[in-house]
This record gives sequence, structure tokens and C-alpha cells, in this order.
Amino acid sequence: MKQRLFTPGPTPVPHTVLLRMAEQPIYHRSPEFRALHDRVRKACQKVFQASGQVVVLASSGTGGMESILVSLTSPGDGIIAVNGGKFGARWAEMGRRFGLSVQEITIPWGEAVSPERLADGLRRAPRTQAVCLTHCETSTGTVTDVRSCAEAIRACSDALICVDGVSSVGGLELRFDEWGIDACVAGSQKALMVPPGLAVVALSERAVGATARATMPRFALDLGRAVASAATGDTPWTPASTLLAGLDVALEMLNQEGIERVWARHRRLGAGVRAGVRALGLELFSHFPSDAVTAAWLPREVSWDALRDALRSRCGVTFAGGQGEFSGRIIRISHLGYVDGYDVLAALAALEEALGACGFTVNRGAGVAAAHDAMLESGTDRRV
Amino acid sequence: MKQRLFTPGPTPVPHTVLLRMAEQPIYHRSPEFRALHDRVRKACQKVFQASGQVVVLASSGTGGMESILVSLTSPGDGIIAVNGGKFGARWAEMGRRFGLSVQEITIPWGEAVSPERLADGLRRAPRTQAVCLTHCETSTGTVTDVRSCAEAIRACSDALICVDGVSSVGGLELRFDEWGIDACVAGSQKALMVPPGLAVVALSERAVGATARATMPRFALDLGRAVASAATGDTPWTPASTLLAGLDVALEMLNQEGIERVWARHRRLGAGVRAGVRALGLELFSHFPSDAVTAAWLPREVSWDALRDALRSRCGVTFAGGQGEFSGRIIRISHLGYVDGYDVLAALAALEEALGACGFTVNRGAGVAAAHDAMLESGTDRRV
Repeated sequence: MKQRLFTPGPTPVPHTVLLRMAEQPIYHRSPEFRALHDRVRKACQKVFQASGQVVVLASSGTGGMESILVSLTSPGDGIIAVNGGKFGARWAEMGRRFGLSVQEITIPWGEAVSPERLADGLRRAPRTQAVCLTHCETSTGTVTDVRSCAEAIRACSDALICVDGVSSVGGLELRFDEWGIDACVAGSQKALMVPPGLAVVALSERAVGATARATMPRFALDLGRAVASAATGDTPWTPASTLLAGLDVALEMLNQEGIERVWARHRRLGAGVRAGVRALGLELFSHFPSDAVTAAWLPREVSWDALRDALRSRCGVTFAGGQGEFSGRIIRISHLGYVDGYDVLAALAALEEALGACGFTVNRGAGVAAAHDAMLESGTDRRV
Repeated sequence: MKQRLFTPGPTPVPHTVLLRMAEQPIYHRSPEFRALHDRVRKACQKVFQASGQVVVLASSGTGGMESILVSLTSPGDGIIAVNGGKFGARWAEMGRRFGLSVQEITIPWGEAVSPERLADGLRRAPRTQAVCLTHCETSTGTVTDVRSCAEAIRACSDALICVDGVSSVGGLELRFDEWGIDACVAGSQKALMVPPGLAVVALSERAVGATARATMPRFALDLGRAVASAATGDTPWTPASTLLAGLDVALEMLNQEGIERVWARHRRLGAGVRAGVRALGLELFSHFPSDAVTAAWLPREVSWDALRDALRSRCGVTFAGGQGEFSGRIIRISHLGYVDGYDVLAALAALEEALGACGFTVNRGAGVAAAHDAMLESGTDRRV
């Protein structure tokens, strides 16, 4: 059966990326590698809308988050971490693990932090070294208004603004320079359309400066060292070179489409999925829904296990379930990366079918039609 | 031009491995992934000759070394690190970076540490938490007699025996259980015949126990967490699933050949390359040459830059140069991983040709013939 993955990582990988990764690895101490590495870093700048340093780590997104924390802080430093889901909680847990003084701003899952709340936290802890945000909280399908948050932080503090952009960069609008972000991590297996195994970190000049002063013990995930090596096209440790070659192809595709158009496509897909699931009678989980992944409450009479199995066995479709206390209570449909409007229609058709198989009454075609309409009406070009 | 890579990582990747990695990534929270993960971990046990825990990290080999150090120690603990080259030095540097009390046993590059020297070090620091060895010191082409070293350590100490097996596991004889090793890290891009991006770590029961007591701050590289997740087939963070799928194929190949026969093949290749370079009048660099990579002094009249360029432009062949103070003075020819005797003959033919092009008089065919003879005479089966 044809398989369709609508999980918020890994996302579908274009065949040109897959084939590039099927080439023999090249030696990483060679002119060919340095050219590849430089090209990838430059292309990443466009995707992050960042003019400064970008480094690529052989690591999960979590390792990328850790690289930011350990490279920019010293033991005992204060940080603010916004916990509105599993990934926000990770910033806080990680900070405590490394002996940081963590002010955790806890918000209900499905809500986004307000700029005022951050400003308030900073007033209480004016010497905060870093504020850690989650652009797209994948566990809840929620987007944070990073632009307004960064503005509020900058207005009252010198704290470094650190953004988990693992499931947003390359999909959702993010303007690293313009918004005044200091460190942001992306994951290869999300909007970047590459299999998992790479974390990409963009750094501001302030952040690069901070790496020189930060005394947190670190080695493999030392961003200062990565930046220093990158000056000659090198990496301090052996890079995951085939994934990097795949990233080269994927970034070329993104930049060919144009990053603003990529963002618009994700807005269109998000609008479509939201309209579709609502038309089927499902309620959105998030009050600030992300255009990368849509979370919706499961109808009370439908079991997640049954729905997941029906989707897999009947349709070859994989959605993600809920995490933490929402495990079994919500579904999460990703529309991030190498996805277009017709993929979204397939996802909704499968959802209609599987909900029906689980005994939930659906008006066949209602979800697909509503999604199609919403996508055609999104933006100005009236296309899916 | 056909390209041949004789670098000690990355090594050539079999096309079946490449093609497997060109398949769409699978969702890592699925029965398919758990089956893959379990299969890979079991196959790794055969390669390490280990009956305990094996975990796979999305990381460079350096990150794998760090995972061992931070998961098994607490700040202020004493460790012994043997520095006989670039990678031994890395254990020591890493230990200091993490606030460990490092007793560095420095030996000249090209020498191997003696068991007596280790026993002596342990007598001076009887509360040492870990002894860090390098099985194959890639920078010098030197093999350490890990079996005898481990025996000497066990005889006088409870220190955990940690082995950098990045460029040995799956190529050189290593018997994790039998030799009493506690932690050993392998790299995907070496004998394991997969592109870079994975570190594989085997742990003894003692080592797993130590992860529970070790207080070194850690997160992404926490082996205790990886072991706990692996109990249900999971990984704590997103795994590099396409590399893992490639590793599945490569391990199947290694275990099909039989790990003892794989070791014998590497012994044969090592004997061949050593005989070949000697027949060309080159002197071996190491006094304990490794069967994974051969380092040889460059003739005084030959410049490394010229030789490297001749190899690349005339022959499509890549060797590695020297590192540290031996940069420009030695060549390193890898014969690790997906390499057979005829590959070795190609390497020596290219070396003959490129040395000649650099003005060094070679007796054409002498290196190839000597290598061929040595390989046919190595072992009992008289084949290349």
C-alpha cells in the first residue's frame, strides 16, 4: 500500500534529496566538502533570514537545543523557559539539568505565551541570561508570536533570545535578523525535508560573543568551536556528510520556491487542514494553531488506537497521537515540509474514512471540500 | 574519473546500504521502527561480542566518546587517559573540559601503551573512576592491545574500562564481554560501512549501574536515558532513522560474513598494505601497526601536497595525510570496512604511480606484488 506520512517529523523527503543521499559519502577534509558546507550554510541563511553564523550539527533537535544552552550560559545563570507543551518543558528540564536557575513560565497546553508575561518574568529576574521560546510547540500544534515576544524582551532586557525552531524553520515565517533572535535551532527532518540526524543552529553576533564568555562544560556540542571551524569550511568533528548533501538539495528547492512563498504555502495548508477537521465536527486543540501541525480533539466515542490502526491498515496514512496527558485524546496532523494541497486532501479523505470505520458519523466529502475551499481562498493566487 | 576513498572514515559504503538509506524515513514511534531498532541493537551485540546494552546515538564518534564520559562520571572524578595521538588526546581534553581530574599517560605517537604503564598509573590513583583507551589510534595507525590492558586494569582496580573503538569495532578483533570492557563506542562511518552520523555505544552491566550514580550534567548524550528508552524499542530523542536503516543492512552483511572472518580479512588487508608500502621503500610510522589504517613516513623528497594532488588528479584516489606535528610528513591509507584485497592492490598501484609522478623512484609493480603475496600468505585460506 502507498504510505503517506503526516507526522510532525519525519516529514516526506523529496526523491531528489533521497537520491543525493544515496551517493557515496565524500571525504570531509577536502575542497569538495568545504564547498558543500559553505553552500549549505549560505542557503540556510536565506531560510532563517539570518546574516550571521549558521552551523550544522550531527545531532537530533534536542542536541541542537542543548548546544544553544551549554554554549551561551555559565553554571548558575538564570534563564526563562516557557513551558506550554512537551518541547517547552524540555528547555526547562535541560536548564535544570545543567545547573541553571530556571524561571519556568507555565502556560496551559494549547495556549501561547504573551509578550507581557515575558516582560513580567524579566522584571522579576533582570539578570536573566537567556529566554527560551518554542516557535512551534509540536506537542500541541501551537505557534508562538516570536516577533512580539522578542520585541518585548528586547525592550526591557539584554537576555539572549533562544528559539526552538525545530519544527518551524523553513515552514513558518521566521525572520531571525529582523526579529532580533540570538539563537535558533532547526531540525533536518521537519520543514527542511531531509531525514533526521542534523540540527542547524543560527547565531547572532551577540550570541557568538557569548560563546566566548560562557563557561558551561561542553565539548561535542560547543557552538563556539563549530563557528571557529566553519571559518575555513570545516567542522570540528566528523559531519554527517550524506545528510548534509541531502540538505544541500532540499535548501536549493526551498530557495528556488522562495522562502516567502514557502511560508505562504504552509499558511494555505494550515488553513485547509483546520477547515477540514472542523467541517468533520472535530474541535481544534490549540487556541493559537500552527501552520506546521494541526492538533484536534478526538470525538469522545473514537479511540485513538482504533483510529490510528484504521488509518494505517485501510489508508496507509500515519498521523501522530497526543503526548503527555493528552495521549489518546488528540490527533496531530502534520502539514510541514514537502507537502502540498493535494496531500492535505488525501489526509482529510483518509481521516473521513477512518473516523467512519471507527463508528463516528461523517458527512463524506465535507472535510475534503472544506479544506479545498479554504486553500483556494487562502492568499491571493487562488491555487492549492 | 572513478573515485576510490582510502580515508579512515568515511569508508566506502556498499550500494545496498546506500539504496536502503534512499528509502523514505519511517516514523520512529511505530512498530516498524521498534523492530528495526531492536534488530540493529542485537546485530551490534554480535559485532561488539557483547551481551549487554547497546545504544545508537545520532552523533559523531566524538559525541559518542562524550556520552561515555558524561554518563559514567561525576565532577571531580579521576580518570586516566592514554594520549598516544590525536584521539587519545581527545579523551584527556574532554575529561578536563568536564571538570574531571585527568591523569594523562602520554606516549610517543606511533607507540602503544603497555599494561604495566596502566597498572602503574592506577597504583598512583587507586580511586580512578575510568580508564580511557583508544583501540585504534587513527592519527598514527596504531593498535592498542586492549585485551592485555583490560586484564592489567582489572587485576588492580575497579575502574571502568572505556574504549574508543570508533575506527576498530567491526574491523579489528574486539571481544567486549570476554576482555572485560565496560564501555566502547563505534562510529558508523568506519568498519560499520555506513555514512557518518551515528555513534554506537556498548555498555557492561557495571557501566549501566554507573550511569545511575554518575552526576555529571548531561541531557542529549545521556546513556542511562537511552538504555531506559531502548527497553521498549524507543529512543529518547528523534533517531537518525535512515542511517539506522542503512546500519541494519551493513550489520547483516558483517554478520553474514561472520565477525571472525571480518577480523581475519582486516588482518590480511593490513599485512598486504604494510608489505606493499615497505616494498616501495617507505617506512612504517607505527611500531604497533593497526590492521585498520596504515601510516607510513613520506620519503623526504616527496611533498604531501604534491602526492595528494597526483593521487587525486591522476588516480581518483584519496588517502589521508598526517595530523598534528606529523602533518605533511606521513600518509595514512585506510583499509577498513567495505574493502577487499583487490582494492588494496588498486591503492598500491596508485601510490606507485603518484610517487613516481612526484619524482620518487619506484620499482613499478613491486608494491602491488608484495601486497598480493602477503595477502595470499596471510591466514590459512590463501585468498585475497
